[in-house]
Amino acid sequence: MIAWKNLDTLASYKKLSALKRVNLPDAMSGEKGAERVKKYSVPMACGLSYNFAAKAVDDEVLAALSELAAEQQLTEKFAALYNGEMINTGEKRLVLHQLTRGQLGGAVMADGRNKRDFYAGEQAKAAAFANKVHAGEITNASGEKFTTVVQIGIGGSDLGPRAMYLALENWARANGTLKMDARFISNVDPDDAASVLKTIDLKHSLFVLVSKSGTTLETLTNESFVKDALKNAGLDPAKHMVAVTSETSPLAKSSDYLAAFFMDDYIGGRYSSCSCVGGVVLSLAFGPEVFARFLDGAHAEDLTSKETDILKNPALLDALIGVYERNVLGYPATAVLPYSQALSRFPAHLQQLDMESNGKHVNRFGESVDYPTGPIIFGEPGTNGQHSFYQLLHQGTDIVPLQFVGFRRNQAGMDVDIQGSTSQQKLCANVAAQIMAFACGKSDENPNKSFEGGRPSSIIIGEQLTPESLGALLAHFENKVMFQGFCWNLNSFDQEGVQLGKVLAKRVLAHDTDGALKAYSDLLDI
Amino acid sequence: MIAWKNLDTLASYKKLSALKRVNLPDAMSGEKGAERVKKYSVPMACGLSYNFAAKAVDDEVLAALSELAAEQQLTEKFAALYNGEMINTGEKRLVLHQLTRGQLGGAVMADGRNKRDFYAGEQAKAAAFANKVHAGEITNASGEKFTTVVQIGIGGSDLGPRAMYLALENWARANGTLKMDARFISNVDPDDAASVLKTIDLKHSLFVLVSKSGTTLETLTNESFVKDALKNAGLDPAKHMVAVTSETSPLAKSSDYLAAFFMDDYIGGRYSSCSCVGGVVLSLAFGPEVFARFLDGAHAEDLTSKETDILKNPALLDALIGVYERNVLGYPATAVLPYSQALSRFPAHLQQLDMESNGKHVNRFGESVDYPTGPIIFGEPGTNGQHSFYQLLHQGTDIVPLQFVGFRRNQAGMDVDIQGSTSQQKLCANVAAQIMAFACGKSDENPNKSFEGGRPSSIIIGEQLTPESLGALLAHFENKVMFQGFCWNLNSFDQEGVQLGKVLAKRVLAHDTDGALKAYSDLLDI
Repeated sequence: MIAWKNLDTLASYKKLSALKRVNLPDAMSGEKGAERVKKYSVPMACGLSYNFAAKAVDDEVLAALSELAAEQQLTEKFAALYNGEMINTGEKRLVLHQLTRGQLGGAVMADGRNKRDFYAGEQAKAAAFANKVHAGEITNASGEKFTTVVQIGIGGSDLGPRAMYLALENWARANGTLKMDARFISNVDPDDAASVLKTIDLKHSLFVLVSKSGTTLETLTNESFVKDALKNAGLDPAKHMVAVTSETSPLAKSSDYLAAFFMDDYIGGRYSSCSCVGGVVLSLAFGPEVFARFLDGAHAEDLTSKETDILKNPALLDALIGVYERNVLGYPATAVLPYSQALSRFPAHLQQLDMESNGKHVNRFGESVDYPTGPIIFGEPGTNGQHSFYQLLHQGTDIVPLQFVGFRRNQAGMDVDIQGSTSQQKLCANVAAQIMAFACGKSDENPNKSFEGGRPSSIIIGEQLTPESLGALLAHFENKVMFQGFCWNLNSFDQEGVQLGKVLAKRVLAHDTDGALKAYSDLLDI
Repeated sequence: MIAWKNLDTLASYKKLSALKRVNLPDAMSGEKGAERVKKYSVPMACGLSYNFAAKAVDDEVLAALSELAAEQQLTEKFAALYNGEMINTGEKRLVLHQLTRGQLGGAVMADGRNKRDFYAGEQAKAAAFANKVHAGEITNASGEKFTTVVQIGIGGSDLGPRAMYLALENWARANGTLKMDARFISNVDPDDAASVLKTIDLKHSLFVLVSKSGTTLETLTNESFVKDALKNAGLDPAKHMVAVTSETSPLAKSSDYLAAFFMDDYIGGRYSSCSCVGGVVLSLAFGPEVFARFLDGAHAEDLTSKETDILKNPALLDALIGVYERNVLGYPATAVLPYSQALSRFPAHLQQLDMESNGKHVNRFGESVDYPTGPIIFGEPGTNGQHSFYQLLHQGTDIVPLQFVGFRRNQAGMDVDIQGSTSQQKLCANVAAQIMAFACGKSDENPNKSFEGGRPSSIIIGEQLTPESLGALLAHFENKVMFQGFCWNLNSFDQEGVQLGKVLAKRVLAHDTDGALKAYSDLLDI
């Protein structure tokens, strides 16, 4: 029987809070530091591993975290989720995004059908469609092949698919599977669509309109923007556009689209990269086989999230360490620092995934909680960040826990040897050096050149960023966020906090305002 | 006589800390909210204005902030800076980036010459060079015009110029002044350079190598990467590359470059967008006239930063309110939220500018301070962020102060009318709505749909993002960061916190490691 409890009611949490703090500079020094690096590592799927040697934990803290996992029933709650219980209580919905990549538990029946079959069926439809586009069986009105795919969507319909596309673009180019260039239009700022439309070949572009409800104002506005541009170019919009939406949306059966691909209410926007929201654009860009490999990687990582042993479950362990840092050590933010240019927008995706899921102050029963929940998430790729905001991370007055990601090999296979090392070696040397600099610091007689250390980090290490390892990486963070939501007793799958702004914006546009809102509207000439 | 004092020694700071907190939801309600919006606004240069009605301040707090500005001698310290005193005490350097855009005080003589003349002279050289490239007087070996400019640099040689280019690309396209496309290579990850090189026309590309010292390892590595690619394409690298560096650097007189443009040690990387670091690439991309307009805007804004009245000095006021939020109200982060897709990388630039300048825990005398200094800075353009991390901003357990930026008109001049409003109107309606939602919140009988409000924000409003207003915006934030550094008694112009990682990375590459650093190196196959 599952019990939903606040974090601060748990005996294991009280025990955890009372434990002696780990002296990280000391723990990471000398040979015992080397031992930690070898010991504090958990295998993930697809050759990845989660190394937490530079986190401020020890065997005692890990034991308390393990008790917390058991007392808060974290893997049982995950099992309830993948077996189809109504976990999104706020919106009274199941939470089924893991089903888009494989079956983790029993068959989930909803809306009168098997949901795994439904998601796999839509992926198969998208694959068949992409294959026809690539084969020239679906073409523009002149019978010419489409060369560019443009996704129109916002939030989860944009950030995740965009981050995944960028993560694999170079890999696909190097491996001869870049079938179509992909571009993205998201912002209601008309300059966003204008900038994309002015730099693509409209006649050979296929647009993917993504809106679950079919009513997202930004997305419908950008659709009209694009349709106007197509018409002005003498093209028929209905021959250049497909829709990704729910079966009940106004877009579902419209003759305005070449085809429609479906998702449903059980997949939240920020968790939708593995559904047709990501599947259509990624299958068109890279081919359906590449998208299938991405799903396989995610599913393989999902399987590790079922483990009850926290040392065999990297997402669970990562989540627990994060809760320890947030609630016991009191750190307000986490930086995500991938040492891979391909992951340039991965931090932005994680920012949404994490902050929209767990940036909440009421628990699943609508009661205010008395402890901090989701942290601020930000980040940029290294080594760029090293020449930028790392100053604060090293010597600022606040401690920011860090999540590094690194790969032994690059994607494009081009490299250069300078001063006795390749660029890839320099990249890897930098991430190793940073972990140690943050953990151990260095004293100097000039206090301005002195580093306190004690700044905790973890690293996910892989051989190469491929479709499989990208899928595993994505699933790791999705599951981490889910487990943290369970720890904090939140509903991580709704987003009521974005509603008020929408309501007020509509009032501004209807000129139904007064007071300060009217004053701002006047200032902005609305 | 200037006295450099810690913030917590100031009588005005103690007074400020003791003042009654402002009830923001109440202050912004009804007609008094409308009055605040009209009253709490400070003009900036180039038609911009800084509106702080939705900040948690009142006349009493403002009076205390004004006292703090006087007691901490903030504008006197700025005057010392622009008159050429050695403000960067750590590195024993003057701080002269404002001189790149105009003369604010007396002539500054250093290294045996007038520094304003030196900077202006280099800009004139860059302008003449760009004009020759545009006119086809400087061409590739086949006598064909260069069409693309690629900047190679990292940190301040990348983020600022890249953000400025993206900010004006659409404007320039709409105004017929986009002379060359610009691209950027920064990361030592070889996939970064590979991805740029595979998608440009090498034969018609001109590279701008930017390194003040001429020894930045990432940049020299990428230079070699590019030279290899040029040679492999049968092209002579020396005919495709210029350098931006200091006169004493090994790059300065090399025959490897078509030309060299100079900066000096008195302009820090993160403050170098207005020097030749930004000037060469932006003059090539948009024409020198556009770059000159950008400088004019920055200089006009610098002039407002000389005002001693905090209600006439927007950068000073913004800085003081930020210190109040950080040190008195205790907020650890600030989000920068431009409602303009053109400013997509502006938050990343401000992240470096702010966090690298003020992410420090020792004062200018090398003594530890007992108060928080620079906050975490992050952000993404609205409306995208609304569909992402705004959930936490509205309903999370921590309060994050916000800095909005918005413009009444878009850049490209393309728009569409949907449901009775244009995209630009929707964009502006959203920012107005968000400010009010954050400030006032909304109660609801369902606590999950309830918004506490009390989340402070400011907005910079302009007519349009142009070269002038972009320059003013940049100068505003540079000067804000400088004033905050003065408040906290920091040296905002060095960056010792980035050194340790560099040293350790060199040791890794030399295989001069042991303990945990060796263990990580092994894991990463270095």
